[in-house]
Amino acid sequence: MGAFIVLEGGEGAGKSTAVAVVKQYLLSHGVAEKDIIETREPGGTEIAEKIRTILKEKNPHEALTSEAELLLMYAARTQLVNLVIKPALSAGKFVIGDRHDLSTIAYQGAGRGMDIQKIAGIRDLAIGDFAPDLTIVMDIEPAAGMKRARSRGELDRFEVESMDFFNRIRNSFLQEAEKHSDRIKVVDAGQELDAVKADIVRVLEKAEICTVG
Amino acid sequence: MGAFIVLEGGEGAGKSTAVAVVKQYLLSHGVAEKDIIETREPGGTEIAEKIRTILKEKNPHEALTSEAELLLMYAARTQLVNLVIKPALSAGKFVIGDRHDLSTIAYQGAGRGMDIQKIAGIRDLAIGDFAPDLTIVMDIEPAAGMKRARSRGELDRFEVESMDFFNRIRNSFLQEAEKHSDRIKVVDAGQELDAVKADIVRVLEKAEICTVG
Repeated sequence: MGAFIVLEGGEGAGKSTAVAVVKQYLLSHGVAEKDIIETREPGGTEIAEKIRTILKEKNPHEALTSEAELLLMYAARTQLVNLVIKPALSAGKFVIGDRHDLSTIAYQGAGRGMDIQKIAGIRDLAIGDFAPDLTIVMDIEPAAGMKRARSRGELDRFEVESMDFFNRIRNSFLQEAEKHSDRIKVVDAGQELDAVKADIVRVLEKAEICTVG
Repeated sequence: MGAFIVLEGGEGAGKSTAVAVVKQYLLSHGVAEKDIIETREPGGTEIAEKIRTILKEKNPHEALTSEAELLLMYAARTQLVNLVIKPALSAGKFVIGDRHDLSTIAYQGAGRGMDIQKIAGIRDLAIGDFAPDLTIVMDIEPAAGMKRARSRGELDRFEVESMDFFNRIRNSFLQEAEKHSDRIKVVDAGQELDAVKADIVRVLEKAEICTVG
């Protein structure tokens, strides 16, 4: 019982909708509402949300270096994993994550061009070998995703990056999914909403989330 | 021309006084006021000061993990080194630092018991092999230092630690000074103020800060 299910994807890929689909799936498979925890990263604890603010806000006087960005991401993640996610899983609960470690590989690694080995060293200190039971990558053509993100309002520090940046991120998500095909699944988020929802449910069933035991 | 001179030491060791002594020394050796930059860590840039707030404040609902503390320290440090200290040194200026990397080895390594090799890996990502030209450790018996710190007012998240914690930190400072005796010097901060000041000046002269060229 209990699992950590993560939704990943670029801007405007529909992660929030996907989170709602996963939650509905769990509820309809007999999981009580109180046993479902939703997290978002960076963030999800009081301290991690303060770190999120630093990561997201545009500072007119000072650029956040790629290194600082990476260190802040993992500072927030170690708080969330150790104080929220691990205790919840130990108690048999389900955690639905809006982003987790794969976003760091995609954004800071492929996006910012940071050395993946260096990222791995910092991950090791921050969260050790902790990993989600299932990660669903919501895949969308970056231009289409950005159009959706823009329609939501003002763009944050990440959302103003170039198309090339978002293409590298998309490729990274897809490559990681190929490398770890047992635990990272891709859903075509460019489809009609009903088809997207059906695909997410299929992924959850195939991963035997709540279907065994 | 130009140098990065760092003051280190436990709580109540008189680092602020020492910073003033170093500044006065530089001024009296012909360095213009505009060419002297003072920094404090964690902090020293707009973003790094926000990180400092997270590090210093006591949160009643959430403990900051040792790992998050370390990652936040280096996030602040990479901002400060890359955006303030390195540009100042390149311009031939002098930087006087109230704490720097040695504090992390002492507080997070010896104090919190984190693996020094792991700290080194994160330092490598954050600041590479950047190091001060001269570090002066203001050494004081922890009990005496705490008495001074307490008389200044409320204690922060670090200052409320146990005496054992502060003894480990003191020993770490002294050990590092022994290991790197060429660039880390110890001043007995338990002496009368005039003797302390004279010792700092002697260290600066011996290190040939402003006495050659």
